[in-house]
Amino acid sequence: MDTNPTFEKLKARLATVADLAGAAAILGWDRQVMMPLAGAPVRGEQLATLSRIAHQTFVSPETGKLLDELQSYEDSLDPESDEASLIRVTRRDFEKQVRVPAELRAESMRAANDGYVVWLEAKPKSDYKLFRPALERNLDLRHQYVECFDTTEEPYDLLLDDFERGMKTAEVREIFARLKDEQRRLIDAARERDDGDLDDVLAQRFSPETQREVCHEIVNLFGFRPDTWRLDITEHPFATNGWIDDIRITTKYHDDNLDAVFSTMHEYGHGIYEHQVDRALVRTPLSRGASLGLHESQSRMWENLVGRGMPFWRFFYGRLQRAFPQQLGSVDLDAFYRAINRVRPSLIRIESDEVTYNMHIILRFELEQELLHGRVSLDDLPDAWNQRMWEYLGVDVPDDRHGVLQDVHWSSGSMGYFPTYALGNVISVQIWEKIREDIPDLDEQFERGEFTSLREWLGDRLHRHGRKFTPQETVQKVTGSPIDPEPYLRYLNEKHGAAAPA
Amino acid sequence: MDTNPTFEKLKARLATVADLAGAAAILGWDRQVMMPLAGAPVRGEQLATLSRIAHQTFVSPETGKLLDELQSYEDSLDPESDEASLIRVTRRDFEKQVRVPAELRAESMRAANDGYVVWLEAKPKSDYKLFRPALERNLDLRHQYVECFDTTEEPYDLLLDDFERGMKTAEVREIFARLKDEQRRLIDAARERDDGDLDDVLAQRFSPETQREVCHEIVNLFGFRPDTWRLDITEHPFATNGWIDDIRITTKYHDDNLDAVFSTMHEYGHGIYEHQVDRALVRTPLSRGASLGLHESQSRMWENLVGRGMPFWRFFYGRLQRAFPQQLGSVDLDAFYRAINRVRPSLIRIESDEVTYNMHIILRFELEQELLHGRVSLDDLPDAWNQRMWEYLGVDVPDDRHGVLQDVHWSSGSMGYFPTYALGNVISVQIWEKIREDIPDLDEQFERGEFTSLREWLGDRLHRHGRKFTPQETVQKVTGSPIDPEPYLRYLNEKHGAAAPA
Repeated sequence: MDTNPTFEKLKARLATVADLAGAAAILGWDRQVMMPLAGAPVRGEQLATLSRIAHQTFVSPETGKLLDELQSYEDSLDPESDEASLIRVTRRDFEKQVRVPAELRAESMRAANDGYVVWLEAKPKSDYKLFRPALERNLDLRHQYVECFDTTEEPYDLLLDDFERGMKTAEVREIFARLKDEQRRLIDAARERDDGDLDDVLAQRFSPETQREVCHEIVNLFGFRPDTWRLDITEHPFATNGWIDDIRITTKYHDDNLDAVFSTMHEYGHGIYEHQVDRALVRTPLSRGASLGLHESQSRMWENLVGRGMPFWRFFYGRLQRAFPQQLGSVDLDAFYRAINRVRPSLIRIESDEVTYNMHIILRFELEQELLHGRVSLDDLPDAWNQRMWEYLGVDVPDDRHGVLQDVHWSSGSMGYFPTYALGNVISVQIWEKIREDIPDLDEQFERGEFTSLREWLGDRLHRHGRKFTPQETVQKVTGSPIDPEPYLRYLNEKHGAAAPA
Repeated sequence: MDTNPTFEKLKARLATVADLAGAAAILGWDRQVMMPLAGAPVRGEQLATLSRIAHQTFVSPETGKLLDELQSYEDSLDPESDEASLIRVTRRDFEKQVRVPAELRAESMRAANDGYVVWLEAKPKSDYKLFRPALERNLDLRHQYVECFDTTEEPYDLLLDDFERGMKTAEVREIFARLKDEQRRLIDAARERDDGDLDDVLAQRFSPETQREVCHEIVNLFGFRPDTWRLDITEHPFATNGWIDDIRITTKYHDDNLDAVFSTMHEYGHGIYEHQVDRALVRTPLSRGASLGLHESQSRMWENLVGRGMPFWRFFYGRLQRAFPQQLGSVDLDAFYRAINRVRPSLIRIESDEVTYNMHIILRFELEQELLHGRVSLDDLPDAWNQRMWEYLGVDVPDDRHGVLQDVHWSSGSMGYFPTYALGNVISVQIWEKIREDIPDLDEQFERGEFTSLREWLGDRLHRHGRKFTPQETVQKVTGSPIDPEPYLRYLNEKHGAAAPA
């Protein structure tokens, strides 16, 4: 293949940035999984140094010059080629990042760190007053961030764009409006259902060591190779990677429930996405998921569509019963299935089920915009939260710890992030419908413990593209349609609607 | 305290370099301890990128400019102050590193990597011919390295200086001549000793899991705090750190001997040295050991002077017997002590004892100089090795795997490194004599399992200085004399001489 020397120069520069990012990912993983506690202060400095050098290298005028020189080369290429995509995406990232002054970036990082520390203290005390100044500072910095760009009608677009490249607030609003109508109806229906018999199924003692064996067995079934993956234990589960052949996922085993089983499947979904990105994109900014929403579509797919589906458990429930004979020996598959799919409006987003989850997100999406536009003041925020929780989910928030202080995101200035979770749910089923068309015997494969077809379909149709295309382009390419809430609503209605088995 | 803004600029620049080095240390540790196997190729790129950026940052003309501007500030300071030391040591490092062209540095790193890979293949096959071209390339690059500097009478000085700043070949030669005479005599005496009763003491099965508990107990006794240290398992034991409060040591448990006990103590000695460097030196190039020789003096001190000493085992042997009742229940303390201190000329450096070890080093020190001067050709090297092994140790080398191919060092171009091991032995006892003067009841403390006085003495008198002074200055400061072989020889004579218990 012909090589363009200017393009090779750009690639070398981006490889440096990617190496620094990969190094930072492993150091971040180490901090949570391996580092002795007292190591934290200088580890923070090391990570800040790597981030600063990566950013300086990326936004240097030399990058801009190379991109300018590559315009005609780019025009000569197939826009879907790796080369054209690399230039296009890099140009977009570059034009966005050069707008933000180094001081604002540094101040935002400091405010994020400080806010996180205050949040860690305020949450257990349920002390919103303590947290409020940090939130105000972060909100002010988000305003300053928005002002770095040309005026738009929807300033929230600029925040959203950091997580869902190219998505507009209006598009999300339309999708969410549809979800909201329909899901409120499903929540009402679920509330009338009598499922008190499920109370004790999952609320038992489960040995963490046995859970560990079960979870390793599950990811091994899904396709986890020890020469390219690790699965470790952390307080908060996450997935990260040094590169596509160094995938690290974590989980947490609670001794009084089986949440780890599903959180491990969830992180597996994130891991397999990045593991299957095309090898040709390694050490470029394209070697990761297309967006947070696409990423979440993959974690939710393995957690909910595979992991909370009957076919998987037809294969695996016997094994789980043998692992926990006293706890599950007398629970039949049907009861277990209903227990892991039980719908119950609750206070906490991360504990909520498929039917209620998006309502938690919609509430945050609305409040973020209202905060940004000053339609809700910081003083009124907790009340607005609590009122809407009552309205959308029918639950009564007892304190801010179980309300506005529950999530880490705002403490570190992440606004525009929450909607990606609900988009992930939506996209997951949209892709799932397509998969079921292409692999008609998917259920039978799962019932035999076979996941290779699914994994390969995802690799071939979605994962390998990495970050070449925008989320909308990616979804269009995989499913033939733009992001569409209807498949998700059909799925919810079938699984949890009035006609569904109680 | 007054701050000098130019000095602060220098410190900020050095902090960046230190952060990159700390990050690389953790990534290197991760590669050996945690990384999935297939992660290696891009991890190599990431480490090369960190090293390149650190080097470029350090040798940039801006560093030179700051150092020039700081000359009068330096002259105004106490030369022993942290500030003056930082400027002085940085200037020396800078002046040395700017002499080496980037291409030579890059080519040396490539040759080191390539040589290591060839060595991994050649050693098990005992195939010196396969290894010879890699050694020739490394030797040629060492010549090119020497040529970057002003001509000296002893080109080997330039190689040695990379590991023992300021030491001259002539100084080492004089020390080694004294060791050689005396140790050959001690080896002859040992050969005549009848110690066949010790054959079976350590050659037994020892469960790795129990060894692990014992080794953790020992380092905890020595002073290993889990909030600042880790102890993990690797194929080849080593010590590294992200910074002084993130110390990582490793060991390997063999099921057919107790070597892990002593290798763990050895790595503990390296770890505690860097853990106790003055906090004011963190994120500077002074925050590590003064030299490899000083470092080895600390590892050998904990391994041999503490760990192969009678007082420690008077305290700990009962515990070891309880851990291994079948293996050691009927072995009395005296027999165990003699077994762990047994002298036997052997083929392999890393398996050799206190009496023979330095002879392995002297052989390498001589051959390195003869190679560099062309007095021994690469073709004749294996024979020269084998002949000298017979002459110095009375052992017959059966093949190159147990001879010239045994060590990794030359494969990656490290020449001038070996002497630091013997200097470490020498310095360890020189410092030890001083400690025993200052802490007269040291033995009694060890017999009670107390190591705090020793640790604090080392921290206060040696470790805290980090890399502020040259090895000779450091030894002078701690002991009042330059590096001196007599204490080591006195120690060997007392422990292993004709009058010693057989």
